[in-house]
Amino acid sequence: MEALKALLNNSIGLTESEWEVLRNVFQTEIHPAKTSLVREGQTAKKIYFIREGLMRAYLLRDGKEVNTYFATDHQFISTYASLIAQGPSVEILETIEETSVYSLSYTALTNLYQTMPKFEKLGRILAEQNYLCVVDRTVTMQTKTAKEKYLDFVKNYPKKIVQRVPQHHIASFLGIAPESLSRVRRTVHTS
Amino acid sequence: MEALKALLNNSIGLTESEWEVLRNVFQTEIHPAKTSLVREGQTAKKIYFIREGLMRAYLLRDGKEVNTYFATDHQFISTYASLIAQGPSVEILETIEETSVYSLSYTALTNLYQTMPKFEKLGRILAEQNYLCVVDRTVTMQTKTAKEKYLDFVKNYPKKIVQRVPQHHIASFLGIAPESLSRVRRTVHTS
Repeated sequence: MEALKALLNNSIGLTESEWEVLRNVFQTEIHPAKTSLVREGQTAKKIYFIREGLMRAYLLRDGKEVNTYFATDHQFISTYASLIAQGPSVEILETIEETSVYSLSYTALTNLYQTMPKFEKLGRILAEQNYLCVVDRTVTMQTKTAKEKYLDFVKNYPKKIVQRVPQHHIASFLGIAPESLSRVRRTVHTS
Repeated sequence: MEALKALLNNSIGLTESEWEVLRNVFQTEIHPAKTSLVREGQTAKKIYFIREGLMRAYLLRDGKEVNTYFATDHQFISTYASLIAQGPSVEILETIEETSVYSLSYTALTNLYQTMPKFEKLGRILAEQNYLCVVDRTVTMQTKTAKEKYLDFVKNYPKKIVQRVPQHHIASFLGIAPESLSRVRRTVHTS
């Protein structure tokens, strides 16, 4: 759990006794590829810290999958709106490859907010990062060309996501047609 | 400052001595109608709690104003992405009517996070609300009809915003043409 401990320590600073409490509220889970952890209409009950693997959040629009988020090793993921509002999820949370996670239940999370106030800081940082991420995504979708979107994606996302997420998933995430993505990738990699 | 005290007390619970600290870090400001508090490209330095008035955040797209947020009495407003990232703002923050506010500087806010850890909870709640708001807005923009958008707006926003924000501002906020808004309003108010 060293990566999780390092991330938490980095964000909010932890004493050894705080870490002892925390390590016991996270559960280890391993899920095969293409497992749905939250389905459309379900309420998200957990947030996940990925030990190793690849996951995505997506929604269905006119019967088509539109990816909204990817995460890989040492990143948090959940269907965040559903988690914090504790309401039915519009998004679906799914593994792309086999993924092992440390999960934290919503109940444990809200307990931590009460018993370990510095955990509020982690909650604030996650919420702010998610806010900036969704705003940035909205602006990108509306203003950038396919090439700009792809170059931003390559620059800002972990290598493992850029290299291992299937191309059709990346295309729907960037809001461009799969053929446009192929064209852009050819231009980029030969220029 | 009773409304601000009540809101803070409600969100995070305050002792009298904590409130004494807080009341001194908020500054009172009064701004005439149509005053820009944050311009495009500036970094937001304050968050505002509105005592009385009406404000909006908007951005320019192809030279046209697109409203992104309205706030009125007893609500917080800022160009939030710029505030939390401390980077140049895409949005412009402006008063619609004369507005009196209690402002809290970014420096004071970050100091509060350190000296009064329960303030982190307020930061988390604001960030989560802003996240849900922007996600909801994105989904609404992409999936609802003009009539549905207007009905949602009337139902979810304070009466003062619904009644006093000029119609062309509401139209751009809802992403519909001013003529469509007039048509929808006629249908709604005569049905």
